[in-house]
Amino acid sequence: MADLAISRFPVPDVVDLPADLRARILAVQERTGFVPNVFLALAHRPDELRAFLAYHDAVMERDSSLTKAEREMVVVATSAASNCAYCVVAHAAILRVRARDAALGDLVAVNYRSAPLTDRQRAMLDYAVTLSVTPDNVGPADHALLRLAGLDDEAIWDISAIAALFALSNRMAHALGLRPNAEFHAMGR
Amino acid sequence: MADLAISRFPVPDVVDLPADLRARILAVQERTGFVPNVFLALAHRPDELRAFLAYHDAVMERDSSLTKAEREMVVVATSAASNCAYCVVAHAAILRVRARDAALGDLVAVNYRSAPLTDRQRAMLDYAVTLSVTPDNVGPADHALLRLAGLDDEAIWDISAIAALFALSNRMAHALGLRPNAEFHAMGR
Amino acid sequence: MADLAISRFPVPDVVDLPADLRARILAVQERTGFVPNVFLALAHRPDELRAFLAYHDAVMERDSSLTKAEREMVVVATSAASNCAYCVVAHAAILRVRARDAALGDLVAVNYRSAPLTDRQRAMLDYAVTLSVTPDNVGPADHALLRLAGLDDEAIWDISAIAALFALSNRMAHALGLRPNAEFHAMGR
Amino acid sequence: MADLAISRFPVPDVVDLPADLRARILAVQERTGFVPNVFLALAHRPDELRAFLAYHDAVMERDSSLTKAEREMVVVATSAASNCAYCVVAHAAILRVRARDAALGDLVAVNYRSAPLTDRQRAMLDYAVTLSVTPDNVGPADHALLRLAGLDDEAIWDISAIAALFALSNRMAHALGLRPNAEFHAMGR
Amino acid sequence: MADLAISRFPVPDVVDLPADLRARILAVQERTGFVPNVFLALAHRPDELRAFLAYHDAVMERDSSLTKAEREMVVVATSAASNCAYCVVAHAAILRVRARDAALGDLVAVNYRSAPLTDRQRAMLDYAVTLSVTPDNVGPADHALLRLAGLDDEAIWDISAIAALFALSNRMAHALGLRPNAEFHAMGR
Amino acid sequence: MADLAISRFPVPDVVDLPADLRARILAVQERTGFVPNVFLALAHRPDELRAFLAYHDAVMERDSSLTKAEREMVVVATSAASNCAYCVVAHAAILRVRARDAALGDLVAVNYRSAPLTDRQRAMLDYAVTLSVTPDNVGPADHALLRLAGLDDEAIWDISAIAALFALSNRMAHALGLRPNAEFHAMGR
Repeated sequence: MADLAISRFPVPDVVDLPADLRARILAVQERTGFVPNVFLALAHRPDELRAFLAYHDAVMERDSSLTKAEREMVVVATSAASNCAYCVVAHAAILRVRARDAALGDLVAVNYRSAPLTDRQRAMLDYAVTLSVTPDNVGPADHALLRLAGLDDEAIWDISAIAALFALSNRMAHALGLRPNAEFHAMGR
Repeated sequence: MADLAISRFPVPDVVDLPADLRARILAVQERTGFVPNVFLALAHRPDELRAFLAYHDAVMERDSSLTKAEREMVVVATSAASNCAYCVVAHAAILRVRARDAALGDLVAVNYRSAPLTDRQRAMLDYAVTLSVTPDNVGPADHALLRLAGLDDEAIWDISAIAALFALSNRMAHALGLRPNAEFHAMGR
Repeated sequence: MADLAISRFPVPDVVDLPADLRARILAVQERTGFVPNVFLALAHRPDELRAFLAYHDAVMERDSSLTKAEREMVVVATSAASNCAYCVVAHAAILRVRARDAALGDLVAVNYRSAPLTDRQRAMLDYAVTLSVTPDNVGPADHALLRLAGLDDEAIWDISAIAALFALSNRMAHALGLRPNAEFHAMGR
Repeated sequence: MADLAISRFPVPDVVDLPADLRARILAVQERTGFVPNVFLALAHRPDELRAFLAYHDAVMERDSSLTKAEREMVVVATSAASNCAYCVVAHAAILRVRARDAALGDLVAVNYRSAPLTDRQRAMLDYAVTLSVTPDNVGPADHALLRLAGLDDEAIWDISAIAALFALSNRMAHALGLRPNAEFHAMGR
Repeated sequence: MADLAISRFPVPDVVDLPADLRARILAVQERTGFVPNVFLALAHRPDELRAFLAYHDAVMERDSSLTKAEREMVVVATSAASNCAYCVVAHAAILRVRARDAALGDLVAVNYRSAPLTDRQRAMLDYAVTLSVTPDNVGPADHALLRLAGLDDEAIWDISAIAALFALSNRMAHALGLRPNAEFHAMGR
Repeated sequence: MADLAISRFPVPDVVDLPADLRARILAVQERTGFVPNVFLALAHRPDELRAFLAYHDAVMERDSSLTKAEREMVVVATSAASNCAYCVVAHAAILRVRARDAALGDLVAVNYRSAPLTDRQRAMLDYAVTLSVTPDNVGPADHALLRLAGLDDEAIWDISAIAALFALSNRMAHALGLRPNAEFHAMGR
């Protein structure tokens, strides 16, 4: 039977964390009803968790021409390409909530090419998955295609940064054996 | 926007189908509450649908040392490896029902190696996915590993036949652009 | 030395088979002069053999705009892509017979792109091999290319169904370690 | 002729940057003699650059049982696996400086398996490259191998975090078309 | 219809070739009954053909603990891995002749792992195909396995040199679109 | 620690070599200041070394519309694709010398797509790397692209022959564990 711990590394108690991280985690818990395991598992290294959250907020919370649902689509499609259980289960849940559409969330998680997307969203995910899986195949022609699909340079940077950040996140999740919280499976259904 | 039809090919009306197929489909509808799209889409060629159902029943309904949930695990894990939207969404639903465990169904759909499986189930899925994705890598050593994990020759045939049948099914689903029914997303949750 | 048995699983005696399968096998033997090993090896599970033959006949024997030689080309090219010894040796033999051309059979078996094909046949095999090897790469654009090459929807279904059926067949052959009959090597030369 | 700009996106002037980033960049320039292009190119988004630097310092500057040269080996080997021109050229230069060995830096950049490494370093790079290229192949057995090679859990986290951070960095460099500074080519020779 | 020329490049007349090459070609024709197309196609560059023949003789004609049939097995298995029509068709013919076994020749051409080989031959082909397809995966452990299978250092060099020479040959054949002579298909049957 | 020998096979003394090879090697030493290890390591088999040098001279020294620097680009880009330490380190050095440009040499070694190349050079390397890595993907369309980029048939043969010869050379270097001379690292800087 596979290990049921949430991480292969030590997981700190929330009460033992530095005040800023403790506050952030308690705020999430209050809003969502539970603490996503990624916070607890990465908190083993507070400086890394702080940097991760700063990066996350910088790319996921900024004003952008991508909707929040579209940003989650990028997360789910690229994480699915590296078969990352935590990232797909957690962010498919967030995508279901943001898009208010359970079928869309599930389809992007299995194969975004089978999901009912706009042409702009399809171009966005084609690029994000290429950058995630075979980054050295990305060149000026890929950006030209995105511009044809109506995405400007700031949107292209947004997609790139999300794909890049979750390339990091997927690898930490795989290294830690990070387990998705049970709560995610039912969210947004 | 992607096509919302259930298949890229003509889909017959149930009332126009040969009596045996019509009866089978109506029985499924009565039991499940809806007609899974694979029946309607493959019914464009009644002889092929009949052969598919005969093969399906021969491998999925026979007495076997694999539980029905384990057989669905083989379907979901191998279908996930070919990113087959219909097969993953439909059979993850059936797996959730059979295993009475939503988390397990979702984890096998994303990455079976992250799911809490017994060693026997893990060996079963390692073999099934290898046979599905790189069949020429399968040799006597793979069967020896399965025997070490407690699976006898009939169980090995069962796993092989399920992986083989869904290799067919995944390819038909991709060729047809087969769309999962909305009902599957909520089943077993 | 590799095993010389025709299958890694028990192989029944023809005389012990159910009457319908026995009759079918004897008819093949009478027509061809020998019993192809796939019949004997799959007969370990009569229901599966029946379903396999029903599927085979439904896609390989139906009226189609693909010639019988073209259908064998699809079998050989897709089976070569998964390095399936039984399927390539047996069906390259049948292709040599059907096309009355030993060179063509051998070239499709090694690399269909080196064979002297019509543009329509080349499009047919490009699609069939893509569907066989990376099924999730198949989309509406692939069908559009086939239509440009003069293949209608029924022909596209035919190619898809043959590629799908032999994806199943290749995997069973690899799982069983199915050995080609010696007779195939000289057929059609 | 390929574009000679350092990035495909707008690059800010150092004088226009927020004070903290300007100070950091000027400090690097003073120490190294030039401003590595990654600072200038990522400064288009100050919040992302700050988060990147925070992450970088957290994993590359912390006390660790990995030497600074070993950490650069992880950066170079994983960046080489994704053919990232900026990351390989810049960090092979840093590795040459840190290891005081030009041959070692070049060999890790071409193929770390050809470099004269200790068994511990070889295990470290085997794991880092697997996590970088096929993260879903990483499991408990990989960590067990690292422990056998003398690396403890904190060292395993270090290697994982460096590989993960540069997975992000490689993808940003590919998305930006980030050009290595000419100065790197001669450093440490 | 694919081009029926033997090469995409100009093919010289034998009578116009330098005397040494003309003599060599006529000797082959006398012994075999026809001139294999590789001689004619490569003769477009006499110096390269001379070097190719010198290399070929050095590795294929020298005294070796590998039999001539075993050397052809290396050629056929590695050429099959790059789907080289000319090399597989021509050398499978030579293998049938050398091994006096049509089935063996065909099986090595489709999938050497399905052929009835000795353990030593299987180790030989596993190594040759790895060196041919993913040469950077070859390391000391591969040579250790070959020694365990009874192959000494000179035999290991022989296998390596044959795999390397035909890596060259396969690429020239693909670049030239080199067509196998019709005569090869029936040889050794 | 990895082996520091220049080859996994016996390396002869220059004084014991046949006179022609001894003369050739001494001439190289006089011109370059050292004997590149490939000469010493391949000299274990004088006939093979002679054939290798003859092939090398025939493709690398002939009159060609490719400059000598461009030919080295083909060597470096294709050798980088198979991660060949000796070939990349040695020929990147020669490329730096021939092109009088250290940055260009390093960039082609890491990722030729990041190097400042002319469109003709980019087409040349795209083709060479495809032929080297996936030779069966090369067809008439690739040659048509080269002609559009201004390369005639003789230039296309040149690129093909260089890629083919170094496919051989890379595999011998990997099989021998051939170590680059220390002198190469600093050449041309």
